[in-house]
Amino acid sequence: MLDYPALEALAEIIRRGSFEAAAHALSITPSAISQRIRNLEDRSGTVLIDRGPPVQGTKAGLRLAAHLDQVRLLERGLIQTIPDALPVIRLAINADSLATWAMPPLTAAPGLLDVVIDDQDHALDWLRNAHVTAALTSDSRPVSGCDSIPLGRMRYRATASPEFIARYFPNGPDSRSLGRAPALSFNSKDGLQDRWARRIAGRRIALPLHRIASSQAFAEATRLGLGWGMNPEVMIAADLDSGQLIDLAPDQPLDIPLYWQIARISAPALMPLTRAIKKAARTALLP
Amino acid sequence: MLDYPALEALAEIIRRGSFEAAAHALSITPSAISQRIRNLEDRSGTVLIDRGPPVQGTKAGLRLAAHLDQVRLLERGLIQTIPDALPVIRLAINADSLATWAMPPLTAAPGLLDVVIDDQDHALDWLRNAHVTAALTSDSRPVSGCDSIPLGRMRYRATASPEFIARYFPNGPDSRSLGRAPALSFNSKDGLQDRWARRIAGRRIALPLHRIASSQAFAEATRLGLGWGMNPEVMIAADLDSGQLIDLAPDQPLDIPLYWQIARISAPALMPLTRAIKKAARTALLP
Repeated sequence: MLDYPALEALAEIIRRGSFEAAAHALSITPSAISQRIRNLEDRSGTVLIDRGPPVQGTKAGLRLAAHLDQVRLLERGLIQTIPDALPVIRLAINADSLATWAMPPLTAAPGLLDVVIDDQDHALDWLRNAHVTAALTSDSRPVSGCDSIPLGRMRYRATASPEFIARYFPNGPDSRSLGRAPALSFNSKDGLQDRWARRIAGRRIALPLHRIASSQAFAEATRLGLGWGMNPEVMIAADLDSGQLIDLAPDQPLDIPLYWQIARISAPALMPLTRAIKKAARTALLP
Repeated sequence: MLDYPALEALAEIIRRGSFEAAAHALSITPSAISQRIRNLEDRSGTVLIDRGPPVQGTKAGLRLAAHLDQVRLLERGLIQTIPDALPVIRLAINADSLATWAMPPLTAAPGLLDVVIDDQDHALDWLRNAHVTAALTSDSRPVSGCDSIPLGRMRYRATASPEFIARYFPNGPDSRSLGRAPALSFNSKDGLQDRWARRIAGRRIALPLHRIASSQAFAEATRLGLGWGMNPEVMIAADLDSGQLIDLAPDQPLDIPLYWQIARISAPALMPLTRAIKKAARTALLP
């Protein structure tokens, strides 16, 4: 059996980013908390906390902390817990969903939320490594031990400011103009711009890329004329209406299906959250 | 002398997240790009790319890629470069600044932007490790080889929804109510809520914490009544006016000074960006 008080210490350190803050939260001394971690590391034969700075969990440490969350979530089915032992629900949510429709249903989570942001193509890595309990993602591939629930499609539109279009796309987007016009991209895992450009040009284009890892700043950068980019239609509908943004090819939207992938062991405890997500998706997404 | 074509291959792989995409962007074969990386790794005696998935740079690989960016930036002072050799300007910007005032001045950057998000207390780690060229941060400590320019103060207000206040703070915030009311926090490095609670309670409080690593989702979660949190005043001014959010203690704002820290070697090339940042800060921040 694992040493659960030590796991609690480990999880608090990772969550609060310091040994001292964790000791305070657990009402034990800093030396007691160091001792627990050392014992846990000795017994598991591996380093669980990177002492930094910054202090953070190693892969093994994060896996153990995620295990503790799952145990707490299971316990919730058994007993009425006290408020300060609320389980932590760790979720990976793609940034564009969080920026548009996903925040309200997340409030149905039965515990304290820990929302990590990931673009829609790679949230499964988080699930596979058991760092999160559920993920809102565009990846439909089954993850072992997880259920996958299709939610609908999010529509993206290739957009730019009128000035940007006059400068880079006077004759519309094609392989030559796409190779010269700066594109916006969320991060190195964001393949939407590449996919769309390939579809338009009929071949792969090496896009000059800006990278801005925030959905709202990405849309703002599009309006400011920094580059063209794939924006969620629901996010920039008003800009298209007002003419502040122009759709580069109104007949060529990109529809990205989204899935709610959830660790099967936690599915019963997270049922209220799953219901809220499905309901919100029905109004926010295309069928 | 370093092998710069190999460094270019390394930087493209890190930026695009795959060997294949990098080979395409550089118009060389995948086997040629693999060969370049292997040579570079043999000569430096260390692994530069974590083959994943996901494919990403190791610490040493990121440092080499950042070096290449600096060399390109220096070259820009010498010669007129061709459009597809635009230098990449890698910046760490704290999320709340990007969400409120910092995106427009960033468009003055002389090259392709690569904006990484960090909360305001730890962007210096990025600078120190030479993964970024400049950082917008609350940390005034000098970083060796960097200039630090004070920009002004961003005002934060402890806010919550009226329903949340009725439930958790009927008699206002104190050490007892703060220990029970869920707080919002950006990530494990976000100490604003802890600092404010400590000031109000006169001692440290172990806050029950939700974590949501997006400024806009953080504000939305406050409005939805998920928790209380420190929101930038400029971001939630309209909510305070309309009564959708209430200031927990109007006479207790938290003012966070912000600094523009910039690698001295890149300062001349980035002068237009620095000027734009300083100008925007004068209207957006308190003196």
